[in-house]
Amino acid sequence: MTAAERLDATFAALADSTRRAILARLAQGGASVAELAEPFAMSQPAISKHLKVLEHAGLISTVQDAQRRPRKIEGARLGEATAWLEEYRQFWESRYSALDELLSELQAKSPTKPAKSKRPPRRTR
Amino acid sequence: MTAAERLDATFAALADSTRRAILARLAQGGASVAELAEPFAMSQPAISKHLKVLEHAGLISTVQDAQRRPRKIEGARLGEATAWLEEYRQFWESRYSALDELLSELQAKSPTKPAKSKRPPRRTR
Repeated sequence: MTAAERLDATFAALADSTRRAILARLAQGGASVAELAEPFAMSQPAISKHLKVLEHAGLISTVQDAQRRPRKIEGARLGEATAWLEEYRQFWESRYSALDELLSELQAKSPTKPAKSKRPPRRTR
Repeated sequence: MTAAERLDATFAALADSTRRAILARLAQGGASVAELAEPFAMSQPAISKHLKVLEHAGLISTVQDAQRRPRKIEGARLGEATAWLEEYRQFWESRYSALDELLSELQAKSPTKPAKSKRPPRRTR
């Protein structure tokens, strides 16, 4: 799979609340199909279908040598999706920074109305 | 839309490389349908279809009062998707930290074989 195909598969797999709930459960530790099906009003075959989508996307894997073949979460693909989104967050953060600078400028111009800021004040050494 | 429905729509919209490329273009600034269609071997109606998916997911919006009705990127939904993924990253990072601690312990037990570490050595004051 190319990087674009991996992102396609990852985002498509994440576009379903049952599959996101399965990932949330697996984030607590490995679980069998029966264990994963339990909290949902869904048959094991229906859950297996969702697991296939997650496994195809590389978001989970099956522990082959264990008797009950538990599924476990795989971090790499979610990391790639996060990295893609991070680029956009940085973009907005720089815009927020620009807004922050503007607010600082306005604050400097009217010192009687200090703007609230989450940042600690800069110390002069 | 509920939070789950918003994540469904966001991740589904992101599961297509053309739509991700459109967002990358819009991250540079607003653009009309004609401008967005230009770099792709795609008709304007085909691009409009992708824009509808992005707009339904709240990832872009149309500047209504402008003549050429440019599209612009909307940060909130991508922020929500990032926040969802962040929870998993923190989970892996804590596992990496646990591995890091284990390596430090092994290093302390066999001081003749110092393990490589990206972290600067701790200074004693």
